[in-house]
Amino acid sequence: MINDSVVDIQSSPDWRNLPVNRVGIRGLRHPMIFEDFTPSRGLTRQSVVARFDMLVDLPKEVKGTHMSRFVELLNEDETVLSVATVPHWLETMVTRLNAKYGFLQVNFPYFVKKLAPVSQAPSLMDYDVSIRGILENDEYHTFVTVVVPVTSLCPCSKEIADYGAHNQRSHVTLTVRATPTLSLMEIIQLIESKASCELFGILKRADEKVVTERAYDNPKFVEDMVRDVATSIEQLESVLGYKISSENFESIHNHSAFAEIDRLWVTQEVKAKSAIEKIAKEYASLA
Amino acid sequence: MINDSVVDIQSSPDWRNLPVNRVGIRGLRHPMIFEDFTPSRGLTRQSVVARFDMLVDLPKEVKGTHMSRFVELLNEDETVLSVATVPHWLETMVTRLNAKYGFLQVNFPYFVKKLAPVSQAPSLMDYDVSIRGILENDEYHTFVTVVVPVTSLCPCSKEIADYGAHNQRSHVTLTVRATPTLSLMEIIQLIESKASCELFGILKRADEKVVTERAYDNPKFVEDMVRDVATSIEQLESVLGYKISSENFESIHNHSAFAEIDRLWVTQEVKAKSAIEKIAKEYASLA
Amino acid sequence: MINDSVVDIQSSPDWRNLPVNRVGIRGLRHPMIFEDFTPSRGLTRQSVVARFDMLVDLPKEVKGTHMSRFVELLNEDETVLSVATVPHWLETMVTRLNAKYGFLQVNFPYFVKKLAPVSQAPSLMDYDVSIRGILENDEYHTFVTVVVPVTSLCPCSKEIADYGAHNQRSHVTLTVRATPTLSLMEIIQLIESKASCELFGILKRADEKVVTERAYDNPKFVEDMVRDVATSIEQLESVLGYKISSENFESIHNHSAFAEIDRLWVTQEVKAKSAIEKIAKEYASLA
Amino acid sequence: MINDSVVDIQSSPDWRNLPVNRVGIRGLRHPMIFEDFTPSRGLTRQSVVARFDMLVDLPKEVKGTHMSRFVELLNEDETVLSVATVPHWLETMVTRLNAKYGFLQVNFPYFVKKLAPVSQAPSLMDYDVSIRGILENDEYHTFVTVVVPVTSLCPCSKEIADYGAHNQRSHVTLTVRATPTLSLMEIIQLIESKASCELFGILKRADEKVVTERAYDNPKFVEDMVRDVATSIEQLESVLGYKISSENFESIHNHSAFAEIDRLWVTQEVKAKSAIEKIAKEYASLA
Repeated sequence: MINDSVVDIQSSPDWRNLPVNRVGIRGLRHPMIFEDFTPSRGLTRQSVVARFDMLVDLPKEVKGTHMSRFVELLNEDETVLSVATVPHWLETMVTRLNAKYGFLQVNFPYFVKKLAPVSQAPSLMDYDVSIRGILENDEYHTFVTVVVPVTSLCPCSKEIADYGAHNQRSHVTLTVRATPTLSLMEIIQLIESKASCELFGILKRADEKVVTERAYDNPKFVEDMVRDVATSIEQLESVLGYKISSENFESIHNHSAFAEIDRLWVTQEVKAKSAIEKIAKEYASLA
Repeated sequence: MINDSVVDIQSSPDWRNLPVNRVGIRGLRHPMIFEDFTPSRGLTRQSVVARFDMLVDLPKEVKGTHMSRFVELLNEDETVLSVATVPHWLETMVTRLNAKYGFLQVNFPYFVKKLAPVSQAPSLMDYDVSIRGILENDEYHTFVTVVVPVTSLCPCSKEIADYGAHNQRSHVTLTVRATPTLSLMEIIQLIESKASCELFGILKRADEKVVTERAYDNPKFVEDMVRDVATSIEQLESVLGYKISSENFESIHNHSAFAEIDRLWVTQEVKAKSAIEKIAKEYASLA
Repeated sequence: MINDSVVDIQSSPDWRNLPVNRVGIRGLRHPMIFEDFTPSRGLTRQSVVARFDMLVDLPKEVKGTHMSRFVELLNEDETVLSVATVPHWLETMVTRLNAKYGFLQVNFPYFVKKLAPVSQAPSLMDYDVSIRGILENDEYHTFVTVVVPVTSLCPCSKEIADYGAHNQRSHVTLTVRATPTLSLMEIIQLIESKASCELFGILKRADEKVVTERAYDNPKFVEDMVRDVATSIEQLESVLGYKISSENFESIHNHSAFAEIDRLWVTQEVKAKSAIEKIAKEYASLA
Repeated sequence: MINDSVVDIQSSPDWRNLPVNRVGIRGLRHPMIFEDFTPSRGLTRQSVVARFDMLVDLPKEVKGTHMSRFVELLNEDETVLSVATVPHWLETMVTRLNAKYGFLQVNFPYFVKKLAPVSQAPSLMDYDVSIRGILENDEYHTFVTVVVPVTSLCPCSKEIADYGAHNQRSHVTLTVRATPTLSLMEIIQLIESKASCELFGILKRADEKVVTERAYDNPKFVEDMVRDVATSIEQLESVLGYKISSENFESIHNHSAFAEIDRLWVTQEVKAKSAIEKIAKEYASLA
């Protein structure tokens, strides 16, 4: 390590009296290990290629942050990330940068092995995942977003047509405010179970028959999709809040149908209230 | 018009007890006239090609919205939009869809004619613009976002190097919570005046000399850029709140430097407080 | 206009003995008028927003081209382009740049008004269009590419399933080597007539019934789509050669099915041979 | 494995008399091991996330190809690819699909560890790589494309300005027709050595001084960049042909400067001719 005696402009004082909310690096690609835990599979590790945004606040007295320190964090050791370790990452980051606010966002494609429904042919499905951590006012928040591509089949089209029904690929995007125990695998499977049909990398003809009929048997409006996922997501203990949307790339139009339920910040309060009411009722029944 | 006697599934009741926050269409391309007003240029009209997102809420009792009604809105007359008419659009939309909440987002590239600094050669500069309107709890909010590409030159590089300084294209993105009098042209010019240098479509050699030296004379960190724009934007009467970011596509790295000041919701309150204090002082000085 | 007496490095000689095949500007956005002619509609003009690539060759003796001259071409008058005027554009460009080779590519979204099949509700459909002109060895070539989004319904799925059939949005991309009389409108309509079903901006319920059933009645593999378009495109006098592909965004997979027939350079020769044979036969029958 | 007795429509005969040039799958994401060999580093293996296009021809008598067979190829074993094994991949693919023509394209980001020039701080640089194999008329062709982001500094701006010079990030894209011994690492380093300056993930201040001055000492037009790479690439024995372009994301404009030298098909012949001439001269000097 050389003695870096070059003048340090970034550390000089600033006179504009304006703190900067977020400053740092954006769009840095870096390989990474992502760790997920599910009761059914245990701990799994996957080599992924990620895109990093790393930001901190800058107090009003300081002219500039030290950009190279963010990149150093990724190059010191093997980069390993899981939902549970996001707060640790944030803490390291704000300490190194002498900051109070921290923002970390990591986007990567994630793969899950599946078996075709009849032939049992194995193949991988890919999902775009985003992990976001925010440290603000001494509180840590971890958000997990996953885009799950599925088949949607239109109930209106099925009902009014004498035969057939338009269907298409849809992107169901779930963002959850997560506890450290959230399992990525679990929320992917939950979403797929609510679609007209899930997707597969390989389908032999016997499989194609099954998925075609399954979709026809499970017609869903874009509104149904988000309502059905919402009803189930709300039950998970690892979910403090959620936002669920579906974008259907309509096979009969050149634009999308879209629906969203946003309970990112209200879910936790609703759950707490419901728990209190439940206890109150139990007490009442004891009396 | 035919008598549409086909069964209407969308209007059937829903039993899941879950309102949908936003439902509608996304990513619909449509030509449009955008009108801007500036004191210097008066009223200008520009033919643009826009991408529309149009969403409303859906009460918990109803199964689905009527997607075709959104598209009808764009196809009845020539589509004309300005910052001032966003509330009118929202009102029409929620009325047609029997909704209470409305969301309209319109993205388009916008062109401004400029003269090169020495040769006076005329050319067009292009900017990505987004107009977003939200009607929520009977209140209308209009947001205007513009991405202004500029030159940024690094003060640290200039200071420490014996000659030269790294510079690059940057995207300065301003979102304002706007009153009906906001001028798109005005905020574009304000941002360009704060950069190391603004961009031009055509530069002859005499112009290139000027912009090269101007950038070298005005080095700015990504933090400086957002602070300098913030200081000026805050003065505009047409701005109720703002968020300003800059992304520098660093010429020495393969990732971006990024900074953001977010006063989208606090500016108005700060302005009101400051106005009250000013009046209080004036009264005091009278006494 | 000022006297641009600044030193002109670009015009200085180069010693590496390497001509540059293509040099110029890329990705310049500029508004434009596109003119199309069809017998059914006559001459139509449409304001579009285009992205320009403009390139010429550079002989081995010269160090650099003059980039600003390309942009000047677009800023002198209103920019008007049609298939027939591409050679004129190329000629102007190479003259201004003292070049022998010219390359012009212009990409823009194009809109066509359609009526829904039953309700006759009017709406616009959008298509990505690319016009490419090449002047090489004193010959002019004009290429027209259009991406037509359509519905495709899988014949295999229809056959093997007891009910339903997977369908999806597909992008059918046609590139033709065109004579000056090529009509953009005509090739769009030809492609749409070969799909399982064409797309519409607005569909009321009675229309949705029709398009759902029409797609089910016209199942097409990705291979069928390109073969059926090929068979018809080959008949057009305005087509010297063509390449036709279809990409189906499969509703049952997270990847696309793709097929392509490439007769961009053979069609003309085949047509000529077939015309000669026809004449020969006629002569023979006369004898 | 079940007995797949479902009717096989794809294998039924087709009557349109039109062979399909390319049919298969597109845009399938799959993890992969990429192997590269350089004399300096030996054999290296890297886990990458790739996007696959896999296509074959379809004779005029057959209705459809069997799409699932392409995906099976990727899911049977761990997917390992190197430049040398592309022909093996093509052979397997056409055998499985009963085809004569094969097309394989694999795109992925690739990472190389670098040390900053003064501080020796280690960081990764990322490059977009594309490996393309074509089997046509019983001949195998392997193409390797790499996009190398670099700094370019404008010689004209440096010359005419009293101080400073505009510079920016550029994408230098090299495609080579490769022999099995081509080293990806080697061509990346060759390109970086010809730029105004190469990029780094981490630069401490002492490093930033060095790269700023290095770029100023090595001004290059977009034409210089492609000529300088061309001169060196032509010398490599592993290169049968090449196409080299540079796109400079100009810091003074909102469009790119672009240059390209295309010797993808002529290089090999030129090399052979030059080798023959050299031998002829040597013989002559012996006489």
